[in-house]
Amino acid sequence: MMAKFIDIHTGMKGVTKQQLAQAHQKDMDHEDAEGVQFLHAWADPQSGKVFCLSEAPNKEAVLRVHRKAGNAADEIYEVPIEIE
Amino acid sequence: MMAKFIDIHTGMKGVTKQQLAQAHQKDMDHEDAEGVQFLHAWADPQSGKVFCLSEAPNKEAVLRVHRKAGNAADEIYEVPIEIE
Repeated sequence: MMAKFIDIHTGMKGVTKQQLAQAHQKDMDHEDAEGVQFLHAWADPQSGKVFCLSEAPNKEAVLRVHRKAGNAADEIYEVPIEIE
Repeated sequence: MMAKFIDIHTGMKGVTKQQLAQAHQKDMDHEDAEGVQFLHAWADPQSGKVFCLSEAPNKEAVLRVHRKAGNAADEIYEVPIEIE
Protein backbone atom coordinates (compact mmCIF):
# COMPACT_ATOMS: atom_id res chain seq x y z
CA MET A 1 0.00 0.00 0.00
CA MET A 2 1.69 3.18 -1.21
CA ALA A 3 0.96 6.70 -0.03
CA LYS A 4 2.16 10.15 -1.05
CA PHE A 5 4.35 12.40 1.07
CA ILE A 6 5.69 15.92 0.96
CA ASP A 7 8.88 16.49 2.89
CA ILE A 8 10.66 19.77 3.55
CA HIS A 9 14.36 20.53 3.86
CA THR A 10 15.68 23.81 5.23
CA GLY A 11 19.07 25.48 5.24
CA MET A 12 19.63 25.16 1.47
CA LYS A 13 20.09 28.88 0.77
CA GLY A 14 21.70 29.49 -2.60
CA VAL A 15 21.04 25.92 -3.81
CA THR A 16 21.54 25.60 -7.58
CA LYS A 17 19.71 23.42 -10.08
CA GLN A 18 22.84 21.27 -10.39
CA GLN A 19 23.12 20.80 -6.61
CA LEU A 20 19.44 19.88 -6.38
CA ALA A 21 19.86 17.41 -9.23
CA GLN A 22 22.88 15.82 -7.50
CA ALA A 23 21.04 15.53 -4.17
CA HIS A 24 18.00 14.09 -5.94
CA GLN A 25 20.20 11.54 -7.71
CA LYS A 26 21.63 10.41 -4.34
CA ASP A 27 18.09 9.99 -3.04
CA MET A 28 17.18 7.94 -6.09
CA ASP A 29 20.27 5.77 -5.59
CA HIS A 30 18.79 4.67 -2.23
CA GLU A 31 15.06 4.66 -2.97
CA ASP A 32 14.63 1.14 -4.38
CA ALA A 33 15.86 -0.51 -1.18
CA GLU A 34 13.01 1.17 0.73
CA GLY A 35 10.28 0.96 -1.90
CA VAL A 36 10.28 4.76 -2.21
CA GLN A 37 9.84 6.74 -5.41
CA PHE A 38 10.72 10.42 -5.47
CA LEU A 39 8.35 12.10 -7.92
CA HIS A 40 9.31 15.76 -7.92
CA ALA A 41 11.43 18.30 -6.05
CA TRP A 42 11.17 22.08 -5.90
CA ALA A 43 13.69 24.52 -4.41
CA ASP A 44 13.62 28.12 -3.24
CA PRO A 45 17.27 29.24 -3.12
CA GLN A 46 16.26 32.49 -1.37
CA SER A 47 14.70 30.90 1.73
CA GLY A 48 16.73 27.70 1.47
CA LYS A 49 13.62 25.48 1.46
CA VAL A 50 13.40 22.32 -0.65
CA PHE A 51 10.13 20.39 -1.08
CA CYS A 52 10.09 16.75 -2.23
CA LEU A 53 7.02 14.81 -3.35
CA SER A 54 7.32 11.04 -3.03
CA GLU A 55 5.37 7.82 -3.09
CA ALA A 56 6.30 5.36 -0.36
CA PRO A 57 5.00 2.71 2.03
CA ASN A 58 5.31 5.10 5.01
CA LYS A 59 6.99 8.28 6.31
CA GLU A 60 9.87 6.41 7.93
CA ALA A 61 10.92 4.87 4.59
CA VAL A 62 11.15 8.33 2.99
CA LEU A 63 13.12 9.70 5.93
CA ARG A 64 15.52 6.73 5.86
CA VAL A 65 16.24 7.21 2.15
CA HIS A 66 16.93 10.91 2.66
CA ARG A 67 19.21 10.14 5.64
CA LYS A 68 21.14 7.45 3.77
CA ALA A 69 21.60 9.89 0.88
CA GLY A 70 22.93 12.58 3.23
CA ASN A 71 19.85 14.77 2.71
CA ALA A 72 18.02 14.54 6.04
CA ALA A 73 14.56 16.15 5.88
CA ASP A 74 13.28 18.54 8.57
CA GLU A 75 9.54 17.87 8.18
CA ILE A 76 7.37 15.28 6.47
CA TYR A 77 3.64 15.10 5.84
CA GLU A 78 1.51 12.33 4.42
CA VAL A 79 -0.80 13.87 1.78
CA PRO A 80 -3.64 11.40 1.12
CA ILE A 81 -5.80 14.12 -0.46
CA GLU A 82 -4.85 15.84 -3.69
CA ILE A 83 -6.47 17.97 -6.37
CA GLU A 84 -5.05 18.44 -9.83
CA MET B 1 7.04 36.40 -16.87
CA MET B 2 5.55 33.56 -14.87
CA ALA B 3 7.14 31.80 -11.93
CA LYS B 4 6.17 28.82 -9.78
CA PHE B 5 5.20 29.00 -6.13
CA ILE B 6 4.43 26.63 -3.29
CA ASP B 7 2.21 28.02 -0.56
CA ILE B 8 1.28 26.42 2.72
CA HIS B 9 -1.94 26.64 4.71
CA THR B 10 -2.20 25.45 8.30
CA GLY B 11 -5.10 24.75 10.63
CA MET B 12 -6.98 22.47 8.22
CA LYS B 13 -7.10 19.42 10.49
CA GLY B 14 -9.66 16.90 9.33
CA VAL B 15 -9.99 18.48 5.86
CA THR B 16 -11.79 16.18 3.41
CA LYS B 17 -11.28 15.73 -0.30
CA GLN B 18 -14.60 17.48 -0.90
CA GLN B 19 -13.62 20.47 1.26
CA LEU B 20 -10.26 20.75 -0.48
CA ALA B 21 -11.98 20.60 -3.86
CA GLN B 22 -14.42 23.34 -2.83
CA ALA B 23 -11.62 25.59 -1.54
CA HIS B 24 -9.61 24.95 -4.70
CA GLN B 25 -12.62 25.85 -6.84
CA LYS B 26 -12.98 29.18 -4.99
CA ASP B 27 -9.30 29.89 -5.67
CA MET B 28 -9.80 29.07 -9.34
CA ASP B 29 -12.82 31.41 -9.46
CA HIS B 30 -10.45 34.28 -8.60
CA GLU B 31 -7.25 33.25 -10.35
CA ASP B 32 -7.84 34.70 -13.82
CA ALA B 33 -8.13 38.27 -12.51
CA GLU B 34 -4.59 37.99 -11.13
CA GLY B 35 -2.97 35.91 -13.87
CA VAL B 36 -2.54 33.01 -11.44
CA GLN B 37 -2.95 29.33 -12.26
CA PHE B 38 -3.25 26.82 -9.45
CA LEU B 39 -1.66 23.59 -10.68
CA HIS B 40 -2.00 21.14 -7.80
CA ALA B 41 -2.96 20.94 -4.13
CA TRP B 42 -2.12 18.31 -1.49
CA ALA B 43 -3.58 18.00 1.98
CA ASP B 44 -2.59 16.24 5.19
CA PRO B 45 -5.77 16.08 7.31
CA GLN B 46 -3.76 14.83 10.30
CA SER B 47 -1.47 17.86 10.65
CA GLY B 48 -3.91 20.25 8.96
CA LYS B 49 -1.36 21.36 6.36
CA VAL B 50 -2.33 22.10 2.76
CA PHE B 51 0.26 22.69 0.03
CA CYS B 52 -0.62 24.48 -3.23
CA LEU B 53 1.56 24.63 -6.35
CA SER B 54 0.84 27.57 -8.64
CA GLU B 55 2.17 29.53 -11.57
CA ALA B 56 1.87 33.28 -11.23
CA PRO B 57 3.53 36.63 -11.99
CA ASN B 58 4.60 37.04 -8.33
CA LYS B 59 3.95 35.94 -4.72
CA GLU B 60 1.57 38.79 -3.99
CA ALA B 61 -0.78 37.72 -6.82
CA VAL B 62 -1.03 34.20 -5.36
CA LEU B 63 -1.65 35.55 -1.87
CA ARG B 64 -4.33 37.96 -3.15
CA VAL B 65 -6.21 35.15 -4.93
CA HIS B 66 -6.13 32.99 -1.80
CA ARG B 67 -7.33 35.92 0.34
CA LYS B 68 -10.17 36.81 -2.05
CA ALA B 69 -11.23 33.15 -2.03
CA GLY B 70 -11.25 33.08 1.77
CA ASN B 71 -8.25 30.71 1.89
CA ALA B 72 -5.45 32.92 3.23
CA ALA B 73 -2.07 31.16 3.05
CA ASP B 74 0.40 31.14 5.94
CA GLU B 75 3.63 30.80 3.96
CA ILE B 76 4.68 31.14 0.34
CA TYR B 77 7.90 30.29 -1.47
CA GLU B 78 8.99 30.96 -5.02
CA VAL B 79 10.44 27.71 -6.43
CA PRO B 80 12.49 28.58 -9.53
CA ILE B 81 14.33 25.26 -9.40
CA GLU B 82 12.59 21.93 -9.94
CA ILE B 83 13.48 18.35 -10.73
CA GLU B 84 11.05 15.84 -12.16
